[in-house]
Amino acid sequence: MKRIVLLRHGESVWNRENRFTGWTDVDLTAEGIEEALNAGRMLKEKNFVFDKAYTSYLKRAVKTLNCVLDKLNQDWIPVEKSWRLNEKHYGALQGLNKKETADKYGEEQVLIWRRSYDIAPDPLAENDPRNPRFEIRYKKVPDKELPRTESLKQTIERIMPYWKKYIFHDLKIADNVLVVAHGNSLRGIIKQLKNIPDDAIVHLNLPTAIPYVFEFDDNRNLVKDYFLGDEDVLKRKIEAVANQGKS
Amino acid sequence: MKRIVLLRHGESVWNRENRFTGWTDVDLTAEGIEEALNAGRMLKEKNFVFDKAYTSYLKRAVKTLNCVLDKLNQDWIPVEKSWRLNEKHYGALQGLNKKETADKYGEEQVLIWRRSYDIAPDPLAENDPRNPRFEIRYKKVPDKELPRTESLKQTIERIMPYWKKYIFHDLKIADNVLVVAHGNSLRGIIKQLKNIPDDAIVHLNLPTAIPYVFEFDDNRNLVKDYFLGDEDVLKRKIEAVANQGKS
Repeated sequence: MKRIVLLRHGESVWNRENRFTGWTDVDLTAEGIEEALNAGRMLKEKNFVFDKAYTSYLKRAVKTLNCVLDKLNQDWIPVEKSWRLNEKHYGALQGLNKKETADKYGEEQVLIWRRSYDIAPDPLAENDPRNPRFEIRYKKVPDKELPRTESLKQTIERIMPYWKKYIFHDLKIADNVLVVAHGNSLRGIIKQLKNIPDDAIVHLNLPTAIPYVFEFDDNRNLVKDYFLGDEDVLKRKIEAVANQGKS
Repeated sequence: MKRIVLLRHGESVWNRENRFTGWTDVDLTAEGIEEALNAGRMLKEKNFVFDKAYTSYLKRAVKTLNCVLDKLNQDWIPVEKSWRLNEKHYGALQGLNKKETADKYGEEQVLIWRRSYDIAPDPLAENDPRNPRFEIRYKKVPDKELPRTESLKQTIERIMPYWKKYIFHDLKIADNVLVVAHGNSLRGIIKQLKNIPDDAIVHLNLPTAIPYVFEFDDNRNLVKDYFLGDEDVLKRKIEAVANQGKS
Protein backbone atom coordinates (compact mmCIF):
# COMPACT_ATOMS: atom_id res chain seq x y z
CA MET A 1 0.00 0.00 0.00
CA LYS A 2 1.18 3.49 -0.89
CA ARG A 3 -0.12 6.72 0.61
CA ILE A 4 -0.20 10.41 -0.09
CA VAL A 5 -1.26 12.63 2.79
CA LEU A 6 -2.54 16.12 1.95
CA LEU A 7 -2.50 18.78 4.65
CA ARG A 8 -3.81 22.33 4.52
CA HIS A 9 -1.78 24.76 6.65
CA GLY A 10 -3.02 25.88 10.07
CA GLU A 11 -4.69 29.23 10.75
CA SER A 12 -2.74 32.20 9.46
CA VAL A 13 -2.85 35.81 10.64
CA TRP A 14 -4.93 36.77 7.62
CA ASN A 15 -7.28 33.78 7.96
CA ARG A 16 -8.03 35.22 11.37
CA GLU A 17 -8.49 38.73 9.94
CA ASN A 18 -10.58 37.17 7.14
CA ARG A 19 -8.51 38.77 4.37
CA PHE A 20 -7.72 37.51 0.88
CA THR A 21 -4.20 36.16 1.30
CA GLY A 22 -3.17 34.39 -1.91
CA TRP A 23 0.57 34.75 -2.39
CA THR A 24 1.04 37.17 0.52
CA ASP A 25 3.55 35.54 2.87
CA VAL A 26 1.72 35.83 6.19
CA ASP A 27 2.68 33.86 9.29
CA LEU A 28 0.70 31.27 11.26
CA THR A 29 -1.14 32.40 14.39
CA ALA A 30 -0.35 30.71 17.73
CA GLU A 31 -3.51 28.67 17.12
CA GLY A 32 -2.27 27.76 13.63
CA ILE A 33 0.95 26.41 15.13
CA GLU A 34 -1.06 24.41 17.67
CA GLU A 35 -3.22 23.00 14.85
CA ALA A 36 -0.08 22.01 12.94
CA LEU A 37 1.49 20.31 15.96
CA ASN A 38 -1.78 18.49 16.48
CA ALA A 39 -1.77 17.25 12.88
CA GLY A 40 1.71 15.89 13.62
CA ARG A 41 0.38 14.10 16.70
CA MET A 42 -2.47 12.55 14.68
CA LEU A 43 -0.03 11.20 12.09
CA LYS A 44 2.33 9.93 14.79
CA GLU A 45 -0.52 8.10 16.49
CA LYS A 46 -1.12 6.25 13.20
CA ASN A 47 2.63 5.52 12.84
CA PHE A 48 3.12 7.37 9.57
CA VAL A 49 6.71 7.33 8.36
CA PHE A 50 7.22 9.59 5.35
CA ASP A 51 9.82 9.16 2.62
CA LYS A 52 9.53 12.72 1.43
CA ALA A 53 7.51 15.92 1.89
CA TYR A 54 6.46 18.71 -0.43
CA THR A 55 5.38 22.22 0.35
CA SER A 56 4.94 25.66 -1.20
CA TYR A 57 7.13 28.77 -1.05
CA LEU A 58 4.83 30.31 1.56
CA LYS A 59 5.73 30.52 5.24
CA ARG A 60 2.39 29.31 6.57
CA ALA A 61 2.75 26.02 4.69
CA VAL A 62 6.49 25.55 5.37
CA LYS A 63 6.01 26.19 9.10
CA THR A 64 3.02 23.84 9.26
CA LEU A 65 5.21 21.16 7.69
CA ASN A 66 8.07 21.90 10.11
CA CYS A 67 5.70 21.50 13.08
CA VAL A 68 4.38 18.18 11.72
CA LEU A 69 7.87 16.78 11.10
CA ASP A 70 8.96 17.92 14.55
CA LYS A 71 6.11 16.04 16.25
CA LEU A 72 6.80 12.96 14.08
CA ASN A 73 10.55 13.14 14.83
CA GLN A 74 11.01 13.05 11.07
CA ASP A 75 12.71 16.45 10.78
CA TRP A 76 15.41 14.73 8.72
CA ILE A 77 13.34 13.68 5.69
CA PRO A 78 13.91 15.45 2.37
CA VAL A 79 11.60 18.41 1.74
CA GLU A 80 10.98 19.93 -1.68
CA LYS A 81 9.51 23.41 -1.91
CA SER A 82 7.88 24.77 -5.05
CA TRP A 83 6.10 27.99 -6.02
CA ARG A 84 3.75 25.72 -8.01
CA LEU A 85 2.18 24.55 -4.74
CA ASN A 86 1.41 28.14 -3.66
CA GLU A 87 -2.15 29.22 -2.90
CA LYS A 88 -4.33 30.60 -5.72
CA HIS A 89 -3.15 34.12 -6.58
CA TYR A 90 -5.95 36.51 -5.62
CA GLY A 91 -4.77 39.44 -7.75
CA ALA A 92 -5.90 42.89 -6.69
CA LEU A 93 -7.98 41.41 -3.87
CA GLN A 94 -4.88 40.36 -1.92
CA GLY A 95 -4.90 42.15 1.44
CA LEU A 96 -8.60 43.08 1.38
CA ASN A 97 -10.86 41.91 4.19
CA LYS A 98 -13.33 39.36 2.84
CA LYS A 99 -16.28 40.78 4.76
CA GLU A 100 -15.52 44.38 3.70
CA THR A 101 -15.20 43.16 0.10
CA ALA A 102 -18.55 41.37 0.45
CA ASP A 103 -20.19 44.50 1.87
CA LYS A 104 -18.82 46.57 -1.03
CA TYR A 105 -19.19 44.24 -4.03
CA GLY A 106 -21.94 42.00 -2.69
CA GLU A 107 -21.72 38.48 -1.36
CA GLU A 108 -22.44 37.03 -4.78
CA GLN A 109 -19.47 38.70 -6.47
CA VAL A 110 -17.16 37.59 -3.65
CA LEU A 111 -18.47 34.05 -4.02
CA ILE A 112 -17.73 34.24 -7.75
CA TRP A 113 -14.19 35.38 -7.06
CA ARG A 114 -13.68 32.79 -4.36
CA ARG A 115 -15.55 29.90 -5.80
CA SER A 116 -15.98 30.16 -9.57
CA TYR A 117 -13.87 27.78 -11.55
CA ASP A 118 -12.61 30.04 -14.29
CA ILE A 119 -13.18 33.67 -13.28
CA ALA A 120 -10.12 35.43 -11.87
CA PRO A 121 -10.11 38.63 -9.76
CA ASP A 122 -8.62 41.75 -11.37
CA PRO A 123 -4.87 41.32 -11.87
CA LEU A 124 -2.20 43.21 -9.95
CA ALA A 125 -0.80 46.15 -11.91
CA GLU A 126 2.74 45.63 -13.26
CA ASN A 127 4.10 48.24 -10.84
CA ASP A 128 2.05 47.17 -7.85
CA PRO A 129 4.56 46.40 -5.08
CA ARG A 130 2.58 43.19 -4.43
CA ASN A 131 3.47 41.93 -7.93
CA PRO A 132 5.44 38.67 -7.53
CA ARG A 133 7.93 39.78 -10.19
CA PHE A 134 9.53 41.99 -7.50
CA GLU A 135 10.12 39.10 -5.12
CA ILE A 136 13.52 37.43 -5.02
CA ARG A 137 11.96 34.03 -4.33
CA TYR A 138 10.39 33.99 -7.80
CA LYS A 139 13.40 35.26 -9.71
CA LYS A 140 14.01 31.85 -11.29
CA VAL A 141 10.40 31.53 -12.48
CA PRO A 142 9.95 32.66 -16.13
CA ASP A 143 7.97 35.90 -16.07
CA LYS A 144 5.24 34.57 -18.36
CA GLU A 145 4.53 31.78 -15.86
CA LEU A 146 4.32 34.15 -12.89
CA PRO A 147 0.66 35.05 -12.19
CA ARG A 148 -0.74 38.53 -11.45
CA THR A 149 -4.09 36.89 -10.64
CA GLU A 150 -5.56 33.42 -11.05
CA SER A 151 -8.85 31.60 -11.41
CA LEU A 152 -9.05 28.20 -9.73
CA LYS A 153 -8.65 26.72 -13.22
CA GLN A 154 -5.38 28.59 -13.72
CA THR A 155 -4.20 27.60 -10.25
CA ILE A 156 -4.79 23.93 -11.07
CA GLU A 157 -3.11 24.25 -14.48
CA ARG A 158 -0.04 25.69 -12.76
CA ILE A 159 0.10 22.89 -10.19
CA MET A 160 -0.50 19.89 -12.45
CA PRO A 161 2.92 19.70 -14.18
CA TYR A 162 4.62 19.61 -10.77
CA TRP A 163 2.12 17.09 -9.40
CA LYS A 164 2.67 14.74 -12.32
CA LYS A 165 6.41 15.15 -12.72
CA TYR A 166 7.39 15.08 -9.05
CA ILE A 167 4.83 14.21 -6.39
CA PHE A 168 2.73 11.54 -8.11
CA HIS A 169 5.79 10.32 -9.96
CA ASP A 170 7.65 9.84 -6.65
CA LEU A 171 4.99 7.43 -5.51
CA LYS A 172 6.54 4.91 -7.90
CA ILE A 173 9.46 4.52 -5.51
CA ALA A 174 8.17 6.09 -2.28
CA ASP A 175 5.52 4.54 -0.06
CA ASN A 176 4.47 7.57 1.96
CA VAL A 177 4.49 11.14 0.73
CA LEU A 178 3.30 14.24 2.58
CA VAL A 179 2.08 17.41 0.84
CA VAL A 180 1.50 20.52 2.94
CA ALA A 181 -0.09 23.30 0.94
CA HIS A 182 -3.16 25.52 0.61
CA GLY A 183 -6.94 25.33 0.17
CA ASN A 184 -6.87 25.87 -3.57
CA SER A 185 -3.63 24.18 -4.53
CA LEU A 186 -4.85 21.05 -2.69
CA ARG A 187 -8.23 21.35 -4.46
CA GLY A 188 -6.31 20.93 -7.70
CA ILE A 189 -4.68 17.74 -6.49
CA ILE A 190 -7.93 16.32 -5.10
CA LYS A 191 -9.76 17.16 -8.35
CA GLN A 192 -7.15 15.17 -10.25
CA LEU A 193 -7.07 12.22 -7.85
CA LYS A 194 -10.85 11.84 -7.52
CA ASN A 195 -11.85 12.98 -10.99
CA ILE A 196 -14.08 15.75 -9.66
CA PRO A 197 -15.84 17.90 -12.31
CA ASP A 198 -15.10 21.62 -12.66
CA ASP A 199 -18.41 22.78 -11.18
CA ALA A 200 -18.13 20.49 -8.14
CA ILE A 201 -14.55 21.17 -7.07
CA VAL A 202 -15.39 24.78 -6.15
CA HIS A 203 -17.73 23.48 -3.44
CA LEU A 204 -15.13 21.25 -1.80
CA ASN A 205 -14.13 22.90 1.50
CA LEU A 206 -10.95 21.49 2.92
CA PRO A 207 -10.50 21.81 6.71
CA THR A 208 -7.28 23.35 8.04
CA ALA A 209 -4.58 21.04 9.42
CA ILE A 210 -6.54 17.76 9.27
CA PRO A 211 -4.50 15.05 7.49
CA TYR A 212 -6.35 13.82 4.38
CA VAL A 213 -5.07 10.33 3.49
CA PHE A 214 -5.16 8.83 -0.02
CA GLU A 215 -4.33 5.13 -0.29
CA PHE A 216 -3.10 3.56 -3.53
CA ASP A 217 -2.32 0.08 -4.73
CA ASP A 218 1.14 -0.74 -6.07
CA ASN A 219 0.13 0.53 -9.53
CA ARG A 220 -0.82 3.90 -8.03
CA ASN A 221 -4.55 3.37 -8.46
CA LEU A 222 -6.55 5.19 -5.79
CA VAL A 223 -8.11 2.66 -3.41
CA LYS A 224 -9.66 4.93 -0.78
CA ASP A 225 -9.41 8.33 0.87
CA TYR A 226 -10.29 9.53 4.36
CA PHE A 227 -9.54 12.23 6.93
CA LEU A 228 -7.78 11.38 10.18
CA GLY A 229 -9.24 12.29 13.54
CA ASP A 230 -12.55 13.16 15.09
CA GLU A 231 -15.68 13.39 12.88
CA ASP A 232 -17.14 16.38 14.79
CA VAL A 233 -13.94 18.44 14.69
CA LEU A 234 -13.76 17.78 10.96
CA LYS A 235 -17.35 18.92 10.36
CA ARG A 236 -16.88 22.08 12.43
CA LYS A 237 -13.70 22.97 10.57
CA ILE A 238 -15.28 22.46 7.15
CA GLU A 239 -18.21 24.71 8.12
CA ALA A 240 -15.83 27.41 9.39
CA VAL A 241 -14.07 27.47 6.01
CA ALA A 242 -17.39 27.53 4.09
CA ASN A 243 -18.61 30.51 6.13
CA GLN A 244 -15.58 32.70 5.37
CA GLY A 245 -16.44 35.61 3.14
CA LYS A 246 -20.12 35.76 4.13
CA SER A 247 -21.27 39.30 4.75
CA MET B 1 31.74 38.60 -3.06
CA LYS B 2 30.52 35.15 -2.09
CA ARG B 3 29.80 33.99 1.45
CA ILE B 4 29.38 30.81 3.42
CA VAL B 5 27.89 31.18 6.89
CA LEU B 6 28.50 28.39 9.38
CA LEU B 7 26.19 28.05 12.36
CA ARG B 8 26.38 25.64 15.26
CA HIS B 9 22.95 24.63 16.62
CA GLY B 10 21.55 26.21 19.79
CA GLU B 11 21.58 24.53 23.21
CA SER B 12 20.14 21.02 23.21
CA VAL B 13 18.62 19.10 26.09
CA TRP B 14 21.78 17.02 26.42
CA ASN B 15 24.07 20.06 26.15
CA ARG B 16 22.23 21.27 29.22
CA GLU B 17 22.58 17.88 30.93
CA ASN B 18 26.22 17.84 29.85
CA ARG B 19 25.94 14.43 28.17
CA PHE B 20 27.75 13.03 25.16
CA THR B 21 25.18 13.42 22.40
CA GLY B 22 26.80 12.50 19.08
CA TRP B 23 24.17 11.01 16.79
CA THR B 24 21.45 10.88 19.46
CA ASP B 25 18.54 12.92 18.12
CA VAL B 26 17.84 15.21 21.09
CA ASP B 27 15.74 18.34 20.88
CA LEU B 28 16.67 21.99 21.47
CA THR B 29 15.90 23.53 24.86
CA ALA B 30 13.71 26.66 25.02
CA GLU B 31 16.98 28.60 25.36
CA GLY B 32 18.37 26.81 22.29
CA ILE B 33 15.35 27.95 20.27
CA GLU B 34 15.83 31.50 21.54
CA GLU B 35 19.53 31.35 20.56
CA ALA B 36 18.55 30.15 17.08
CA LEU B 37 15.97 32.89 16.61
CA ASN B 38 18.57 35.38 17.74
CA ALA B 39 21.05 34.08 15.14
CA GLY B 40 18.30 34.70 12.57
CA ARG B 41 17.88 38.26 13.83
CA MET B 42 21.64 38.87 13.57
CA LEU B 43 21.69 37.69 9.95
CA LYS B 44 18.60 39.71 9.11
CA GLU B 45 20.18 42.84 10.56
CA LYS B 46 23.07 42.34 8.13
CA ASN B 47 20.63 41.73 5.23
CA PHE B 48 21.78 38.21 4.43
CA VAL B 49 19.80 36.60 1.62
CA PHE B 50 20.67 32.92 1.19
CA ASP B 51 20.46 30.93 -2.02
CA LYS B 52 20.52 27.61 -0.26
CA ALA B 53 20.98 26.00 3.15
CA TYR B 54 22.49 22.74 4.34
CA THR B 55 21.97 20.87 7.55
CA SER B 56 22.38 17.46 9.15
CA TYR B 57 19.86 14.67 9.82
CA LEU B 58 19.64 15.70 13.47
CA LYS B 59 16.67 17.58 14.92
CA ARG B 60 18.71 20.14 16.88
CA ALA B 61 20.39 21.36 13.66
CA VAL B 62 17.26 21.20 11.46
CA LYS B 63 15.22 23.14 14.03
CA THR B 64 17.97 25.74 14.47
CA LEU B 65 17.92 26.23 10.70
CA ASN B 66 14.10 26.46 10.66
CA CYS B 67 14.22 29.18 13.34
CA VAL B 68 16.85 31.15 11.41
CA LEU B 69 14.93 30.96 8.12
CA ASP B 70 11.72 31.97 9.91
CA LYS B 71 13.33 35.12 11.33
CA LEU B 72 14.88 35.90 7.93
CA ASN B 73 11.54 35.31 6.15
CA GLN B 74 13.48 32.94 3.92
CA ASP B 75 11.52 29.80 4.83
CA TRP B 76 11.14 29.16 1.11
CA ILE B 77 14.80 28.58 0.18
CA PRO B 78 15.96 25.06 -0.74
CA VAL B 79 17.35 23.04 2.16
CA GLU B 80 19.51 19.94 1.73
CA LYS B 81 19.92 17.57 4.65
CA SER B 82 22.71 15.03 4.88
CA TRP B 83 23.85 12.45 7.44
CA ARG B 84 27.39 13.51 6.47
CA LEU B 85 26.88 16.79 8.34
CA ASN B 86 25.93 14.97 11.57
CA GLU B 87 27.89 15.50 14.77
CA LYS B 88 30.89 13.27 15.51
CA HIS B 89 29.67 9.81 16.52
CA TYR B 90 30.61 9.33 20.18
CA GLY B 91 30.29 5.53 20.18
CA ALA B 92 29.65 3.89 23.54
CA LEU B 93 29.88 7.25 25.31
CA GLN B 94 26.61 8.47 23.78
CA GLY B 95 24.16 9.19 26.56
CA LEU B 96 26.75 9.39 29.35
CA ASN B 97 27.04 12.56 31.41
CA LYS B 98 30.35 14.25 30.67
CA LYS B 99 31.06 15.12 34.28
CA GLU B 100 30.25 11.59 35.48
CA THR B 101 32.50 10.20 32.76
CA ALA B 102 35.26 12.59 33.85
CA ASP B 103 34.86 11.53 37.50
CA LYS B 104 35.04 7.89 36.44
CA TYR B 105 37.74 7.86 33.76
CA GLY B 106 39.56 11.03 34.73
CA GLU B 107 39.44 14.42 33.08
CA GLU B 108 42.43 13.58 30.92
CA GLN B 109 40.80 10.54 29.29
CA VAL B 110 37.61 12.54 28.62
CA LEU B 111 39.70 15.28 27.06
CA ILE B 112 41.36 12.65 24.87
CA TRP B 113 37.97 11.35 23.75
CA ARG B 114 36.58 14.81 23.21
CA ARG B 115 39.61 16.55 21.82
CA SER B 116 42.13 14.13 20.36
CA TYR B 117 42.34 14.15 16.59
CA ASP B 118 42.49 10.45 15.87
CA ILE B 119 41.41 8.51 18.96
CA ALA B 120 37.81 7.31 18.89
CA PRO B 121 35.73 6.21 21.91
CA ASP B 122 34.80 2.52 22.13
CA PRO B 123 32.37 1.60 19.34
CA LEU B 124 28.72 0.71 19.87
CA ALA B 125 28.13 -3.04 19.84
CA GLU B 126 26.39 -4.36 16.71
CA ASN B 127 23.25 -5.16 18.68
CA ASP B 128 23.26 -2.02 20.79
CA PRO B 129 19.88 -0.34 20.21
CA ARG B 130 21.78 2.95 19.75
CA ASN B 131 23.54 1.50 16.67
CA PRO B 132 22.60 3.69 13.67
CA ARG B 133 22.05 0.61 11.51
CA PHE B 134 18.67 0.22 13.26
CA GLU B 135 17.51 3.71 12.32
CA ILE B 136 15.27 4.17 9.28
CA ARG B 137 16.87 7.51 8.49
CA TYR B 138 20.18 5.80 7.66
CA LYS B 139 18.73 2.93 5.64
CA LYS B 140 20.07 4.38 2.39
CA VAL B 141 23.60 4.76 3.77
CA PRO B 142 25.86 1.79 2.90
CA ASP B 143 26.53 -0.10 6.11
CA LYS B 144 30.30 0.15 5.78
CA GLU B 145 30.03 3.95 5.76
CA LEU B 146 27.80 4.06 8.85
CA PRO B 147 29.94 4.71 11.95
CA ARG B 148 29.69 2.93 15.31
CA THR B 149 32.16 5.47 16.75
CA GLU B 150 34.36 8.19 15.30
CA SER B 151 37.52 10.13 15.99
CA LEU B 152 37.51 13.76 14.87
CA LYS B 153 39.67 12.61 11.95
CA GLN B 154 37.04 10.11 10.87
CA THR B 155 34.28 12.70 11.29
CA ILE B 156 36.13 15.07 8.99
CA GLU B 157 36.85 12.32 6.45
CA ARG B 158 33.14 11.53 6.35
CA ILE B 159 32.16 15.19 5.83
CA MET B 160 34.72 16.19 3.20
CA PRO B 161 33.24 14.40 0.15
CA TYR B 162 29.91 16.15 0.79
CA TRP B 163 31.58 19.49 1.43
CA LYS B 164 33.52 19.33 -1.82
CA LYS B 165 30.82 17.84 -4.05
CA TYR B 166 27.88 19.92 -2.82
CA ILE B 167 28.42 22.84 -0.46
CA PHE B 168 31.71 24.30 -1.69
CA HIS B 169 30.83 23.32 -5.25
CA ASP B 170 27.53 25.24 -5.00
CA LEU B 171 29.46 28.40 -4.29
CA LYS B 172 30.34 28.43 -7.99
CA ILE B 173 26.79 29.46 -8.80
CA ALA B 174 25.43 30.61 -5.43
CA ASP B 175 26.48 33.80 -3.65
CA ASN B 176 25.30 33.04 -0.11
CA VAL B 177 25.15 29.60 1.45
CA LEU B 178 24.17 28.72 5.01
CA VAL B 179 25.37 25.59 6.82
CA VAL B 180 23.76 24.71 10.15
CA ALA B 181 25.48 21.78 11.82
CA HIS B 182 27.47 20.67 14.88
CA GLY B 183 30.63 21.49 16.81
CA ASN B 184 32.71 18.76 15.23
CA SER B 185 31.25 18.63 11.73
CA LEU B 186 31.83 22.39 11.47
CA ARG B 187 35.38 21.92 12.80
CA GLY B 188 36.00 19.76 9.74
CA ILE B 189 34.81 22.48 7.40
CA ILE B 190 36.79 25.22 9.20
CA LYS B 191 39.92 23.04 9.17
CA GLN B 192 39.61 22.69 5.41
CA LEU B 193 38.80 26.37 4.77
CA LYS B 194 41.55 27.80 6.98
CA ASN B 195 44.13 25.05 6.54
CA ILE B 196 44.35 24.36 10.25
CA PRO B 197 46.76 21.56 11.29
CA ASP B 198 45.48 18.36 12.98
CA ASP B 199 46.82 19.26 16.42
CA ALA B 200 45.34 22.77 16.38
CA ILE B 201 41.80 22.02 15.18
CA VAL B 202 40.98 20.11 18.38
CA HIS B 203 41.45 23.32 20.36
CA LEU B 204 39.04 25.35 18.26
CA ASN B 205 35.89 25.91 20.33
CA LEU B 206 32.96 27.04 18.27
CA PRO B 207 30.25 29.04 20.10
CA THR B 208 26.62 27.91 19.78
CA ALA B 209 24.31 29.80 17.42
CA ILE B 210 26.70 32.63 16.51
CA PRO B 211 26.90 33.08 12.70
CA TYR B 212 30.48 32.54 11.49
CA VAL B 213 30.91 34.27 8.12
CA PHE B 214 33.48 33.25 5.48
CA GLU B 215 33.93 35.66 2.57
CA PHE B 216 35.33 34.52 -0.80
CA ASP B 217 36.33 36.20 -4.02
CA ASP B 218 34.74 35.12 -7.30
CA ASN B 219 37.26 32.29 -7.64
CA ARG B 220 36.25 30.94 -4.23
CA ASN B 221 39.47 31.99 -2.53
CA LEU B 222 38.92 32.77 1.13
CA VAL B 223 39.30 36.52 1.75
CA LYS B 224 38.32 36.82 5.41
CA ASP B 225 36.30 35.24 8.19
CA TYR B 226 34.55 36.71 11.22
CA PHE B 227 31.77 36.11 13.73
CA LEU B 228 28.67 38.30 13.77
CA GLY B 229 27.53 40.06 16.92
CA ASP B 230 28.87 41.19 20.23
CA GLU B 231 32.49 40.42 21.15
CA ASP B 232 31.73 39.74 24.85
CA VAL B 233 28.87 37.35 24.13
CA LEU B 234 31.14 35.50 21.72
CA LYS B 235 33.94 35.18 24.28
CA ARG B 236 31.57 33.98 27.00
CA LYS B 237 30.06 31.38 24.68
CA ILE B 238 33.43 30.03 23.59
CA GLU B 239 34.52 29.67 27.22
CA ALA B 240 31.30 27.85 28.11
CA VAL B 241 31.99 25.29 25.38
CA ALA B 242 35.64 24.88 26.43
CA ASN B 243 34.58 24.23 30.04
CA GLN B 244 32.22 21.37 29.19
CA GLY B 245 33.49 18.01 30.40
CA LYS B 246 35.60 19.44 33.21
CA SER B 247 35.21 17.49 36.41
